[in-house]
Amino acid sequence: MIASEVSTDDKKFLKLAVNLARRNVGLTGKNPSVGCIITYEDIIIGRGNTQIGGRPHAEVMAIKQASEHYLFKKNRKTKNINVYITLEPCAHETTSPSCAKEIVNFGANRVIYLATDPDNRTNGKGKLLMEEAGIKCVEAKIYKNENSDILKGYLKQKKIGLPYITLKIGSTMNGKIATKNGESKWITNSTCRKRVQLLRSECDGILIGKNSIIVDNPRLNLRDQFEEIENKPIFILDTNLELSGFQSLSIFEKAGKDKVHIITSKELKEKTINESDFFTRVSIENAKMVQDSLNLQEILKIVSRVGVNRLLVEGGAKVWTSFLKTGFFDEIVMFTGNKIMNDSATSCFNDFLPIDTQLGDFPNLTLTSLLKWKDNIEAKWIANS
Amino acid sequence: MIASEVSTDDKKFLKLAVNLARRNVGLTGKNPSVGCIITYEDIIIGRGNTQIGGRPHAEVMAIKQASEHYLFKKNRKTKNINVYITLEPCAHETTSPSCAKEIVNFGANRVIYLATDPDNRTNGKGKLLMEEAGIKCVEAKIYKNENSDILKGYLKQKKIGLPYITLKIGSTMNGKIATKNGESKWITNSTCRKRVQLLRSECDGILIGKNSIIVDNPRLNLRDQFEEIENKPIFILDTNLELSGFQSLSIFEKAGKDKVHIITSKELKEKTINESDFFTRVSIENAKMVQDSLNLQEILKIVSRVGVNRLLVEGGAKVWTSFLKTGFFDEIVMFTGNKIMNDSATSCFNDFLPIDTQLGDFPNLTLTSLLKWKDNIEAKWIANS
Repeated sequence: MIASEVSTDDKKFLKLAVNLARRNVGLTGKNPSVGCIITYEDIIIGRGNTQIGGRPHAEVMAIKQASEHYLFKKNRKTKNINVYITLEPCAHETTSPSCAKEIVNFGANRVIYLATDPDNRTNGKGKLLMEEAGIKCVEAKIYKNENSDILKGYLKQKKIGLPYITLKIGSTMNGKIATKNGESKWITNSTCRKRVQLLRSECDGILIGKNSIIVDNPRLNLRDQFEEIENKPIFILDTNLELSGFQSLSIFEKAGKDKVHIITSKELKEKTINESDFFTRVSIENAKMVQDSLNLQEILKIVSRVGVNRLLVEGGAKVWTSFLKTGFFDEIVMFTGNKIMNDSATSCFNDFLPIDTQLGDFPNLTLTSLLKWKDNIEAKWIANS
Repeated sequence: MIASEVSTDDKKFLKLAVNLARRNVGLTGKNPSVGCIITYEDIIIGRGNTQIGGRPHAEVMAIKQASEHYLFKKNRKTKNINVYITLEPCAHETTSPSCAKEIVNFGANRVIYLATDPDNRTNGKGKLLMEEAGIKCVEAKIYKNENSDILKGYLKQKKIGLPYITLKIGSTMNGKIATKNGESKWITNSTCRKRVQLLRSECDGILIGKNSIIVDNPRLNLRDQFEEIENKPIFILDTNLELSGFQSLSIFEKAGKDKVHIITSKELKEKTINESDFFTRVSIENAKMVQDSLNLQEILKIVSRVGVNRLLVEGGAKVWTSFLKTGFFDEIVMFTGNKIMNDSATSCFNDFLPIDTQLGDFPNLTLTSLLKWKDNIEAKWIANS
């Protein structure tokens, strides 16, 4: 557990494991995206990361590769094998043996991992299982920022049962998201719009308000270099189920029941459902009202139930404001275009605190990254908890 | 005039001249901040830049240093002397000989400068004067961006009789500059506030609206590492001369007649002026009204008459909006703090175009610099002409 147990070489291999884990962020479903490196006398003999959909796990991939390496085949009995993983290996058996058991069977001298898996079925049990087999286990506790960024959705979901929430906003330099007439194409440039594709690829689900769907008619799909990736589940907040009158919108074109979820306060009669083709193509979920909005906590429970660990909230102003108001957000990725608009154009946020709130009582964020894309800005702001 | 006449060594020395010119930006009064390097057989024997207040000029400083250099003293008759300057040397004599004549007297082989001086009394005449004395003259036309940034106030003033105008804004990440109650201290962090001191040091005058003076009670002075620098002339827009009722504000504490200019539409009777101590301490200037604002062109003529080539516009929203509306601005330096405020808080701009303006008709800016200061952002946006 102490830092001195982690050598410079260990750090190097752990860094490589982090890089491997980075690759499949947003593509591993409910499972965390993990990276694994296996060395024999400081020579890498196996690399693995969690595969698309969540299985096989990183350790299994790395062990498979290492098993076929000539150095391993030749020196099968050696104890000079280290396994580097970004997360404690799982201890629970599903259709296949647990990763902890796989490592024991493979035979390692040391296992160094970056964080304990908070999943109740593991949470130290993976470590125990390997220690009982005589393997030395070390929780390195380094690369915390990089690894947390990869695991943030999984860790938050396991710890408090809520997804990690990113508000994605595209605004003018004075914070406007659309003209008075609703025009917003395009406030940010094509590079920023590609970055949005990256954000979509890295999340597990997209949440958006009914108004944005009607006004912007977005596809919310993955395109360009991301088009091979399966589209993410979409959650539309539609209090009064008005979208049933807009069935020709792009989002419903190729909708399958498990992809588009409409969250509404309106209870549907079975008759209505059976009579309309629309309700066979979308999934209707119910949430209660709190004042004049849908209950956000209920919404997030629905999102979690669908298996979303990382949620991208694409707007609009009313939706972002409700996340701001309730504090249910973790970060804001703000794309700033190079336009100035009238003040009476649509703002990115509405009022979210009482009118007489003092300066010191408005929330502070932490700026963790700032990028210039030609004449546009991408800034990542983390909520201070 | 052609690029092939400028060697790699020439470029190196011109770059040094630009760096020298950079030093006194904002401190040279009506004169441009210029840099000069003199070499003898590619060895630097003299360096100079325009001195504080505008005189002596850079060339005179460099010649003085070169004249005392042992290499020059030893080889006085040589022709291997090059003079590198960021601007064509002046051709007009004032209290002292023109710089072009000084160079002729000093004796140079070649003079390489970056830009022609648009001043009517020079504008090619400096070159002519030196060429007639047998000196080879080259206008290098390189380092255009760096040098324009140094000379921009001087060049604009000489070319169209208006100062170069920078709007300096400090806002929250959603474009708000104060709470509903007028609180704005502090939206940006201490590093940004130091950067504002730098902006003040580099301008020749500060313009601000009456409301900002009353609400924020700013000193608008130079402090911290800039406190040795003389404070800049201040121009306050005060249509109805309401400030005469606020004589105890910080800005008037140490005001001298030539430092604080109040621009108003109200014509003062001589009696009023004689009776109030206030009017002996500030300078009152008159401008006519256009709709409900003071005529900006008239204001800028007053600012120019006082000798301001670079004007920093410190707000508030009404003032910035009038510059936006009329197009009388060259750049916006936007400091973004890490707060989010209610939408009903004060915005940095009001409406400046008709309500039904389409997206494409709102102005586009060019982002030339983006800096991260801890949790704050400094962005420089240039107006597209």
